[in-house]
Amino acid sequence: MTVKNLAILGSTGSIGQSALAVVDAHPDRLRVAALAAGDNAVLLAEQVARYHPSLVAMATVDGADRLRIACGGNAVKIVGGTDGLVAVATHAAVDIVICASSGTAGLEAVLAAIDAGKTVALANKEVLVMAGELVTEAARRRGVPILPVDSEHNAIHQCLHGRDRREIRRLILTASGGPFRDFTADALEDVDAAAALQHPTWRMGRKITIDSATLMNKGLEVIEAHWLFGVSADQIDVVIHPQSIVHSMVELTDGSVIAQLGVTDMRLPIQYACSYPERWEAALPSLDLTRAGRLEFHAPARDRFPCLDLAYRALRTGGTLPVVLNAANEIAVESFLHGKLGFTAIPRVIQKTMDTHGVERVTTLDVVRRVDAWARDCARDTAQALELNV
Amino acid sequence: MTVKNLAILGSTGSIGQSALAVVDAHPDRLRVAALAAGDNAVLLAEQVARYHPSLVAMATVDGADRLRIACGGNAVKIVGGTDGLVAVATHAAVDIVICASSGTAGLEAVLAAIDAGKTVALANKEVLVMAGELVTEAARRRGVPILPVDSEHNAIHQCLHGRDRREIRRLILTASGGPFRDFTADALEDVDAAAALQHPTWRMGRKITIDSATLMNKGLEVIEAHWLFGVSADQIDVVIHPQSIVHSMVELTDGSVIAQLGVTDMRLPIQYACSYPERWEAALPSLDLTRAGRLEFHAPARDRFPCLDLAYRALRTGGTLPVVLNAANEIAVESFLHGKLGFTAIPRVIQKTMDTHGVERVTTLDVVRRVDAWARDCARDTAQALELNV
Repeated sequence: MTVKNLAILGSTGSIGQSALAVVDAHPDRLRVAALAAGDNAVLLAEQVARYHPSLVAMATVDGADRLRIACGGNAVKIVGGTDGLVAVATHAAVDIVICASSGTAGLEAVLAAIDAGKTVALANKEVLVMAGELVTEAARRRGVPILPVDSEHNAIHQCLHGRDRREIRRLILTASGGPFRDFTADALEDVDAAAALQHPTWRMGRKITIDSATLMNKGLEVIEAHWLFGVSADQIDVVIHPQSIVHSMVELTDGSVIAQLGVTDMRLPIQYACSYPERWEAALPSLDLTRAGRLEFHAPARDRFPCLDLAYRALRTGGTLPVVLNAANEIAVESFLHGKLGFTAIPRVIQKTMDTHGVERVTTLDVVRRVDAWARDCARDTAQALELNV
Repeated sequence: MTVKNLAILGSTGSIGQSALAVVDAHPDRLRVAALAAGDNAVLLAEQVARYHPSLVAMATVDGADRLRIACGGNAVKIVGGTDGLVAVATHAAVDIVICASSGTAGLEAVLAAIDAGKTVALANKEVLVMAGELVTEAARRRGVPILPVDSEHNAIHQCLHGRDRREIRRLILTASGGPFRDFTADALEDVDAAAALQHPTWRMGRKITIDSATLMNKGLEVIEAHWLFGVSADQIDVVIHPQSIVHSMVELTDGSVIAQLGVTDMRLPIQYACSYPERWEAALPSLDLTRAGRLEFHAPARDRFPCLDLAYRALRTGGTLPVVLNAANEIAVESFLHGKLGFTAIPRVIQKTMDTHGVERVTTLDVVRRVDAWARDCARDTAQALELNV
């Protein structure tokens, strides 16, 4: 049995911990070679003691110092700052890089991993939303597979396995619809962060939970799906499926629909990416459809949840507009989580920022970084102006 | 574009007519080379005039005479009797044999088609239920694909495409549950043929509609699935899904479930079999899940519908017992349709016949024919004995 060596970017986060649980389930097949975390030195030190990676990184030099103290006598190479993330992603022993670091930090590391010929298991939305063309083009040139870990794209990857891409009529991404899917437009005005953080089916981080409530999460996934599967915006549909049992679907040219279903546990898509093109046993409970109750499917309420159409607009326009969409969304969600911005003001901040932007082509990572910084400033100003009206 | 030449066994039946509709939709890809029908000379003559096959067959010599008259001046070679069916199935120009003839008539023709190296698109349940080992072994030896046209097995074929068979944990066949799925045991006693012929989702022939109401149809499909996909009885589950939108599913070793969904139109699986391994456009309406309402899944009521477990027993025992199951079921259903036997007596006739049978190995088609004839006689006697009690 071949052992695959993993690097996990974001090992202390929710996805990172699930990835380590997959390693626990397959100790004879997976080994942890390198780990990177943002700020949680205590947990990363525990992971070092348990998994004995050769290299670990913290997002900052200060964090690396804290980790050194926390690790005590454990002999492990510790690095800090952006270079540390890249060092983990390109470590010579690594076969698969699981990119689960949140935000834009993973972008450079993913490109470096691709250049180094690593298989990339991608759980970070921003990478493809901000630099989809750069990343997929680099992967194509280098012959490196990008395996999606997001449950929706992972489902589509499974549905498409063994099929010619020309068989695709459309991709159908399912969305839980979030906690407010049945709220009236008026009721949405009064939604606060505490209510938005109650996700009905998936337990996730705060940012993504709000994105799920606004449908921006699905919008970002539409953009990702475009890059991952090479289909146009017109070929990607979103359907609300509150039970989150059908993880996504593909309609083929003859009208036949192939769907992937499963329990809502991130260990499944992570294991799939680690095992691909094989498939390993998993010790998780099977999906029992006879106990799952009814499966429902509704069209999304695009008027009440305008973030979805903003994402389609960004994808159709292309260039740097998805960078602006993503950056403005991050700022708006942050303001909302801090109680400074209303729920319905989130799409207004994003739209205003998009309207203000002069779209460019994404030719380098520097363009992405510059536009990202500009969009954050612009969104911050817009959010502040709207704050007065909350 | 390569043109594929079809032979259709049972061209005047429901599946046969759907197959010709697929030819109509793809005149540049499919050509009708040979047709065979049971008794309907008038309709077959119309098909001859429209599709210009080189060879046509009727089930009897008398039928062939009637067809000659009905065809008038149309220059076509006409044959009658069992040899006729074999001649159509092995016609030199034919690439794909669509076997949609009902009952046991197709068995010899399918074996002949396989020997002649034809691709077999199978819509006849009896072929695999009665002679699964002979047929699949012949196909393996000859390197001939058997493509299932039944919507459930076709769904599983689509779900398994490109996957290693070792990835299968279990197959999940969906069943509409028939019109009586919520009936009490008492209410089932009073069911008559007219009520049983009202199938909720699929429009089919009389025999298969009754089989659908007793769940024997699903039991026969369990046996077929065993032969088509090489899985054991323990790896095949049945789930009631009244909406018939999910056509069947495969659970893989990691717990992931792949499902095929679609509109309930037999043209889709027939076209799939004709186009495989390609997939062609179809001009049918797309499945719109947002208009489909809720999808439900229940465990089958094995106590109220004992035919399902009789089929599992026949599969587990193997040998000639599935032949007996099938033959006794045909006799019992015929008696029920003639109002001579109660609905709940159908499984009793089958069980009694199975209990009486001394199981043999299926080594030749002659064994199958002999046991089939014996089981029909035995079931007829059993049904007559029970008639008195109706």
